[in-house]
Amino acid sequence: MAQRGEDFRTIWLKPGDPTTVQIIDQRLLPHEYHVHDLRSWQDGLVAITDMYVRGAPLIGATAAWSLYLAALSGTDSAAAVYEAAEALLKSRPTAVNLRWAIDRILALVDQAASDAALADLILADAQAICDEDIEISRGIGMHGVSLLEAISQKKSGGTVNVLTHCNAGSLATINWGTATAPIYFAQQQGIDVHVWVDETRPRNQGSQLTAWELAANKVPHTLIVDNAGGHLMQHGEVDIVITGTDRTTRCGDVANKIGTYLKALAAYDNDIPFYVALPSTTIDWNSRDGLIEIPIEQRGAAEVSDIYGLSDGKPVHVRTTAASTPISNYAFDVTPARLITGLITERGICAASEAGLNGLFPEIAKS
Amino acid sequence: MAQRGEDFRTIWLKPGDPTTVQIIDQRLLPHEYHVHDLRSWQDGLVAITDMYVRGAPLIGATAAWSLYLAALSGTDSAAAVYEAAEALLKSRPTAVNLRWAIDRILALVDQAASDAALADLILADAQAICDEDIEISRGIGMHGVSLLEAISQKKSGGTVNVLTHCNAGSLATINWGTATAPIYFAQQQGIDVHVWVDETRPRNQGSQLTAWELAANKVPHTLIVDNAGGHLMQHGEVDIVITGTDRTTRCGDVANKIGTYLKALAAYDNDIPFYVALPSTTIDWNSRDGLIEIPIEQRGAAEVSDIYGLSDGKPVHVRTTAASTPISNYAFDVTPARLITGLITERGICAASEAGLNGLFPEIAKS
Repeated sequence: MAQRGEDFRTIWLKPGDPTTVQIIDQRLLPHEYHVHDLRSWQDGLVAITDMYVRGAPLIGATAAWSLYLAALSGTDSAAAVYEAAEALLKSRPTAVNLRWAIDRILALVDQAASDAALADLILADAQAICDEDIEISRGIGMHGVSLLEAISQKKSGGTVNVLTHCNAGSLATINWGTATAPIYFAQQQGIDVHVWVDETRPRNQGSQLTAWELAANKVPHTLIVDNAGGHLMQHGEVDIVITGTDRTTRCGDVANKIGTYLKALAAYDNDIPFYVALPSTTIDWNSRDGLIEIPIEQRGAAEVSDIYGLSDGKPVHVRTTAASTPISNYAFDVTPARLITGLITERGICAASEAGLNGLFPEIAKS
Repeated sequence: MAQRGEDFRTIWLKPGDPTTVQIIDQRLLPHEYHVHDLRSWQDGLVAITDMYVRGAPLIGATAAWSLYLAALSGTDSAAAVYEAAEALLKSRPTAVNLRWAIDRILALVDQAASDAALADLILADAQAICDEDIEISRGIGMHGVSLLEAISQKKSGGTVNVLTHCNAGSLATINWGTATAPIYFAQQQGIDVHVWVDETRPRNQGSQLTAWELAANKVPHTLIVDNAGGHLMQHGEVDIVITGTDRTTRCGDVANKIGTYLKALAAYDNDIPFYVALPSTTIDWNSRDGLIEIPIEQRGAAEVSDIYGLSDGKPVHVRTTAASTPISNYAFDVTPARLITGLITERGICAASEAGLNGLFPEIAKS
């Protein structure tokens, strides 16, 4: 299951069939590696809603590819694209990349002289979004690795222990990841790096995705339950926390997988640097106070009650709770900027503040 | 599954068979209710080690009953009791009630004139430990309910939302529980109370035990993943946090189920009162700094990787992770006294400090 390398992608056009887009069905990892075909924009919508794909950058890219499939679908491509865009926009309310990617594709609609031309334009742009995302991840890795280098030097080459939450890895992007990019760069530079992988209930993206991709890339790691990070930090076992984000306000508040806020509190309480890695597409320049302005998605109870695993070698879902147990399932929380040491972006590292982001992205901040 | 009431017990002598002690095999809840026989002290050791029973007070009581079974077991009762005590002491390193109960029973050995007399003495004292534990829980409930009353009044009778972690309920004690005692008392007084139940990975004591007993007692509750508490606190959905403890230092530091520290940090950050309910048997008067002095038990990787649930109506264990994933599993963490609003004991509520505990237990503090 060699996974990284220049050729790895989480979404691609099927070789020899330009009407089909392919993804990894991430719901089945680590027990099954299954490539899933998207043949319509509705297939793409299901893939996003039911989390065959997840992670803010990959959600955006999947929406772009879904609009390409929409453009192929009917007698009136533009109408189909608008219809698909409206449905896709509602699929995951927290990730801001979704709107960013859809707006970018919709801007092409008026430029096309024909249905076929529109499909070609969207195809090229969906591909460009993916290529750009890879370059963004590389930028995050290049800048972020400096933090791990500094810790390694301070520890005289001793192990750099990174804690991460959820999956902000290759599988959340097109390749390299956001939070994982500095880790993969550190590995390439020969830095002794070890990752504490939060299980990330309820969907277990840590135990089932991050652990999978770190193993595939031979990065030393240890799985822990979400409850354990505070204890490890109290005992000096964590040198730095790096997470991803689904939406970042222009003041540096970060919406990310539920539980991120708890780890930020523990890092702050133990004087451990807490960084968030993000492509600039994840910044919501229209919001300031994340706690008030970012909508937090609530998902189904079955994500909490039912768990995916192997029984006698066969993949099954088991219900862990009594059938009658009432369940609440918020998918994200907001970590206030005051708890965040810095933001790692494709343009560099900045403070989690309006001034910090303005400094790196002056042209967007002003617009 | 009516569960509370005066007659409920988590451990008892088998009716008609004074050589057998019975417990609920809590590993099988909520999917199966199975009464398990302990016929030897070794059975008791397995029940503690493999967590048929858990919770600091019930661990202590089970050790006492195991020593009764030891006294019945051989030609030299005293030798058997000492042998059993030595093995039992090592079974769970964090819970201090274990040592307390064993020391109490060992003090009887020299008082007995014969093997039969020793067994009778231990039987009476094991029963007394259980009866006293119930009175302690009642005391905690009686004092702790004042906190919920005050919140209810402040909210003009609106719902009092309590968050709890792990199971510090009836099932962790003999009856009533520690953290749950104020909740059950509030229910009896007609206070509108609702409990956020932390799932409590890795062993899911929240989703599988606390949710079970709250449902059995008709207390409104909602299950959440351990990651969610911070978000709920940020949004005013939690009025008070009450947890149990496995060991409390004389300065008020609290060792409890892994993840308790993270909830205490979130409560502190959101100005939400954070209380710990404990029988005085849980106080370790010989330790001051919990982070340095309390040993934290590490348990097996399978507790993290394998999850118990129902598949097609049949109870099974599934492996959620890849077989090769390295796992670390610390069972407890320490919450520093500075994050704890107060301690609820059988004698009243006090500050989480040496002065607070000395005020309530002057005779022990001085000894």
